Parts: sequence; C-alpha cells; structure tokens
Amino acid sequence: MPKVNGQRLLADLNHLRTFGQYGNGVVRPSLSQADMDARWWLASRMGEAGLDAEVDGVGNVFGRSSHPGKALLIGSHSDTQPTGGWLDGALGVVYGIEVARALSEDAATANLPVDAVAWIDEEGTFIGCLGSRSYCGLVNQHDVETLSNSQGETLASALDGAGLQGLPGARQFEPGRHVGYLEAHIEQGPYLEEKGDAIGVVTSIVGIHGGVVHFSGQQNHAGTTPMPRRRDAGVALFEFAHRLKEEFTALAGSTTVWTIGNVTLVPGAPSIIPGRAEMLLQFRDPDEARLEAMERRVNEMCAELGAGGMVEATFERSRPPVKPTVMDEALQRHLAEAAEREVPGRWQRMPSAAGHDPMVLADTMPCGMLFIPSKDGISHDFAEDSSEEDIVRGCQVLADAAAATLSEANGG
Amino acid sequence: MPKVNGQRLLADLNHLRTFGQYGNGVVRPSLSQADMDARWWLASRMGEAGLDAEVDGVGNVFGRSSHPGKALLIGSHSDTQPTGGWLDGALGVVYGIEVARALSEDAATANLPVDAVAWIDEEGTFIGCLGSRSYCGLVNQHDVETLSNSQGETLASALDGAGLQGLPGARQFEPGRHVGYLEAHIEQGPYLEEKGDAIGVVTSIVGIHGGVVHFSGQQNHAGTTPMPRRRDAGVALFEFAHRLKEEFTALAGSTTVWTIGNVTLVPGAPSIIPGRAEMLLQFRDPDEARLEAMERRVNEMCAELGAGGMVEATFERSRPPVKPTVMDEALQRHLAEAAEREVPGRWQRMPSAAGHDPMVLADTMPCGMLFIPSKDGISHDFAEDSSEEDIVRGCQVLADAAAATLSEANGG
Repeated sequence: MPKVNGQRLLADLNHLRTFGQYGNGVVRPSLSQADMDARWWLASRMGEAGLDAEVDGVGNVFGRSSHPGKALLIGSHSDTQPTGGWLDGALGVVYGIEVARALSEDAATANLPVDAVAWIDEEGTFIGCLGSRSYCGLVNQHDVETLSNSQGETLASALDGAGLQGLPGARQFEPGRHVGYLEAHIEQGPYLEEKGDAIGVVTSIVGIHGGVVHFSGQQNHAGTTPMPRRRDAGVALFEFAHRLKEEFTALAGSTTVWTIGNVTLVPGAPSIIPGRAEMLLQFRDPDEARLEAMERRVNEMCAELGAGGMVEATFERSRPPVKPTVMDEALQRHLAEAAEREVPGRWQRMPSAAGHDPMVLADTMPCGMLFIPSKDGISHDFAEDSSEEDIVRGCQVLADAAAATLSEANGG
Repeated sequence: MPKVNGQRLLADLNHLRTFGQYGNGVVRPSLSQADMDARWWLASRMGEAGLDAEVDGVGNVFGRSSHPGKALLIGSHSDTQPTGGWLDGALGVVYGIEVARALSEDAATANLPVDAVAWIDEEGTFIGCLGSRSYCGLVNQHDVETLSNSQGETLASALDGAGLQGLPGARQFEPGRHVGYLEAHIEQGPYLEEKGDAIGVVTSIVGIHGGVVHFSGQQNHAGTTPMPRRRDAGVALFEFAHRLKEEFTALAGSTTVWTIGNVTLVPGAPSIIPGRAEMLLQFRDPDEARLEAMERRVNEMCAELGAGGMVEATFERSRPPVKPTVMDEALQRHLAEAAEREVPGRWQRMPSAAGHDPMVLADTMPCGMLFIPSKDGISHDFAEDSSEEDIVRGCQVLADAAAATLSEANGG
C-alpha cells in the first residue's frame, strides 16, 4: 500500500496557511490576491508532483495525471470564508496532491492516474461551488457578468482583475475519464470527537428545506384589548415554535437539525399587540422523504392554526429545496475498508450536515467523502483546528482508498 | 337635577372636530396650529359659559367659576395622537363646559362652582400629561428647554412659536379650592359594548411594568451543530414565551393584560443558530401587588432557565413601573349613583387600561373618571367613534354626579 509522507503533507498545509493568514485563521476569499497567490503556488506543487498543472479560466487549479486508464479526481476548495479557518477546504486540496505523490512513489500504484483539484469559490463569495459548477457546465456568460460579491464587484471584473480568462478558459469535465471524485474535509461538527472516532465515511450530504412562516392577526392597543379578544400574531408564532419543537422532535432522525434563525414582529412596539409576524425556518436531513414530511407538518400546523379563526399562518419556501446528495456506494466501501484497516473500529458512517462541491459533482460522476475530527466541532472560525495525528491519518486512509479504487477500476 | 343640552353638546364636539380634521379622524398634536386654534376657541366657549377663561403659559385652557365654595375641576385633554380619533380627550373637554352650562341653567345648582379644563399634551408629543404635570408643579424650566418632539423641536421653541409665555404664565393648582377632578373619556376598549352597558365608573387606572428579557446562548452553525448540543437563545425565548403564557394566565385577574411587543434574534440569519435574543415585555393591572408578583415570576423564570446551564436569561426594566392610580371612593359613589339613576343596571365598575391625566392629578386632589362605550373598542385610530345617544347620556350622568358632589361638599 502507498504511504503518505506526513511531514511533507503538514509542511504544505502550513505553507498554504500563510496565504491570507490572520492570527490562527485565514482570510482568503475567492479571487482575492491571497487566493490567487495560493492557487499559483498550488499549481506549482502539482507540477512538482508530476501532474500537468494549470489554473483554469475561473481559477480552478487542476493537476492532470498523464498515466493512462480510469482516473480519480481528488481535492477540495482552497478559498475560505470571509474569516475562515486554516483547514476548511485546504485540507482536502493538499490531500489530493499528497495522494498523487504517495501513489507515484509506490511501485504497485505508481502508474495509477490521480488528478488533483483545488476548486474555486465553494464558499460563495460570488456563488457557492462556482468552480465545480463551471467544471460541470452549469455556469454561463450571463452568470459571470451578473454575479457579484458583497462589495458589488461582478465576477467578470474580479476574474479580469485576477488575470483569468473566464469561461472560454475554463476546464470542462472529460466524459469517461474519471471513476469518481474523492474529497476529504474536516467534519465541522462534534460527532467524531464525541465518539472518539478518527474517520467519518460520508453517506450523503444533507438536504435543506427553508422558508418563512407568515402569521397574520390584528394589531391593537396593548392596554385596552382584553387577552381573550386578542389576535396576537406574536403569541401565535411563539406557540407555533413551541409546538414545532415537539412535532419535529417526533419526526427527527439522529442527525436531523432545524433552526429558527430569525423572527420579526410588526410593528414591534412595547404598547402595541403585533398584527403580523414572520419566522425564518430551515431544516436539514440526509433523507429527502423526512424533509418532505417535516415540510408537510409545517403546512398542516399552519392550516390548524388558521382553523382556530384568530391568526392565519402560511409557509412560503424562501429557497428551492436542496435535495440530499447520496455518496457512491463503491467509493463508500473503499473508504470504509481503508478506515477499518487504518483505525479498526474507530470510524463511522455519517451524513455531512454542511454543503460541499460533491453536491454539484454527483450528477456528473460518482462521489465519495471522508471526514476527520474537528476540535470542539468548531468551523468557519479562526479557532478551527484538528490534530496533526488526525490530519496525517486521514490522508493515509484516503490514499489507501484511492489506490484500492483505482486498482479495481483498472483491473488491478 | 340639571339637564344637559344634547344638541349644544354635539354641536360643540363637532365644531372641535373641525380643528385638524382628517377624514373621520383628527390630526391635532399638541401646540400645532390646529391645536392652538382649538384652544382659543375652547377658551371662547368657556367664556360664553360664564367662566373666566384663559390659555395658560403651557397651553392649558382653564375656565374658572366665580361662584364661591368648593369647586369641581372637570375636563380632559384636547390634543390628539398623531393620527387620532375625534373623541379621545375632546369628549371630556366639551363635557366639562356643558356640565358648567347645565348646572348654571338649573336654579338648584346655578351657584355651584364648576371649573372647566382642557389639558395640553396628554398624548406625549413632548411628554405625556404635560398640562396636568405643569398644573401640579412637576415641570421645571430645564424640562421646557430639553423636552422635544419627534421632529427635534424643543418644548421651549414650540411654546414660543405658539405665542405662549411658558412656565411663568402657567397656572398652578389652588390648594383647598377643589373637592376633586372629574374626567369623562371614551372607554377605548370593548368591555362596555360587550356587556351592553352605557356607563363605566372607573375604579383605578392600571399600573404598567415593562422591560426586556435578555437571552444569552451560543451562536453556531445551523447545519453541523446537533440539536442536543445547541445553546439556542431563540428557542429559549420561544419556550420562555410559551411558559410565560401559562404562568401569567395563572396569576392574572379578569382585566390583567400582558404583551410581547417585539423580539430580536442575533445575528438573525437563516443558517446561524441565534446566540442572543431579546423580548420586549409589558404587563398591566389595577393591582400593584399582582404586578409585583408577575415581575417576580419573570425573574424566577429567568433564574430557572439559567440553572439549566444552556442559556442565561435576565429581566431588565426598561421604564420605571407606573403604579396603579386608585379613583376616589366618594367620587366613584356619586358617579355610580348617577349612572344607576340614568341607566339602571346598565353600568359597571371597571379599571382603565389606558393612561389619563388623573394619574398625575390624583396626588394633588381626589379624582373620578367615567367611561362611555367605544364602537368596536377602537381608539387611537381615525375609526374611533361612539353613538350620539351614548355621548349625550354620559354627559347627563357626569352632570348629575357633579351636582350631587358639589351639593354635598357645599352643605347642600
């Protein structure tokens, strides 16, 4: 089996961290100077690993293997949140390069083709998963000209400023080339650490349903309106939230989450009974049938509230639902077998509660994901961290799984 | 018994309505041109009623009787809400003038002294109950120079613009002159109409406690943070509101009201678990002991929530509590006896859920209040209205009660 070089891996990760470093964290949003500097450095490291490296028209970094046969695409994104951690994305990118190196250094796997990739803008400075969308042909010139960042700069202008060619120079996936895509990532949650596990084999990326529950009652004087006569939209919302907790708890699986992220009462004054209210509601689960059942229950609760005759309620989707993305069975099996060899009994299958590029790529090729533990489950924060032991071990599991997958795919 | 002149009363009310009329409603905030025009007209009507009339330095209109003996002060305020109804305040002002006229026209009561008053700024354009505060010596020159309206104009400037002299020309109460103050008002609530009653004899003006409940938890990622680990300040607030409903319902009397007027979740984004939350809470009751018990319960609930270790909660008063104002027993009795003579069995004793000038005046002299029904309980709105029959009947009850009070006070 190929053997990853832990020191080389950690050195590359620490060097990548210097691009946009800010204390323990990193500020490296897509197409910023720090991001582009990092991308050209990553291309050079891919070249040194023996890959044909390029930064494409939208900023994706590809390192293409010249070996024949079915290839694996391995990587993640190298852009960060506005105030991000040093491992989110970066970990999986450097793993891709290190797996390519490790396989090339082992006689039994030296000729297996590994392509490395560093996607751009997974974090959505312009649009979430821009790089993988572009690779899958899901971005057009209109998008490039109209998408903009929070400062109002268009993607077209930012690409131009970064010296990139845009879509005409963007790489497209090559039908038939890849047996699949593998991405490693920090968990960004507490499940692995809580159970003392070293590896998570991702079963799916959770789906997300989100919307607004609107409540409509009657605004009135907070002194002179008796309690039984009130049609208080705020009280209806609070009781709805209380019941939602009971109803969703009953429907939930072990990893279901739901969040009321915001609430608005109108007019919002101390002496006025709120006549209108809104609740921002989001729920996530790996099982689309459960998400549909949860949304159905919300709609039923609205109808039941309205039947009481005091306050009307309606649920309105605020975004198209994101369907759960199921990871490929064969890739899961290779990852699980590698994990069991490396850390027997100390790995688990688990969904990903956050979004990743495989949500886009899974329609184009089989995808697999591997998680390593996040200290205290913290992510999207300067405090994000993982132990060096976990980092190196995760890469070894990924290399094992890649070797096994490629051997099988190429009749090894 | 003196007999009020219904046509004259309604004609005066309808004429007062023309100052600042806006559709069915009135826009006559304190010290506006419309308000001052109305005040000079009211002074002229008081003069025609045989009273010594003046507009004082802060805009109060007084019509002083020249008859000897213990006098009654009768009136209300003639300023309106920014978009007000035609009867709120105006009714009680015109009642004062009509009662003075009715008593002067009846041989048995012709020599009883009735002083009429139209207070300024009960609605708080500059400060609630400015006129009665000034009369009771509770306003100083610093207040005049620093209080301002929502456009930023100081009271001093507005008084100057209205041609008024300010505090040096403000009338002060005359110790020993008055047996008490009577004010009639529309109910602004639904209780009289619901029960088919024509008159409410006010027992007290409710006290008000108000404040903010602060919730402090832990902001976190709405995807990757499992439900049992969440320290969601929003969910804590919703559960608090649900329990508050149960707790306050158990503590409440028949007229207790409470209102959550506003709620804020921080940061208020769809994919972020709220780390902080605030709830604006107000409760009103005629019984100070009950208000104190309610506030104690809120503080206990905060402590119990904090003891759970997930979310901290604290209650912070956002205003000094307003204590309930008890109406004078003798004046209540006279009002009740007059109501029973005029509308036998069709009157009730009731608290006032809204604030009025007697909250200020009751420390200076005995106060009594009478309510007439509000159509649909609507007030502080252009749609505010009462039937002509109820308006005339209310004034007759007030005149009867005033005659009986003054006869008793002056050994009649």
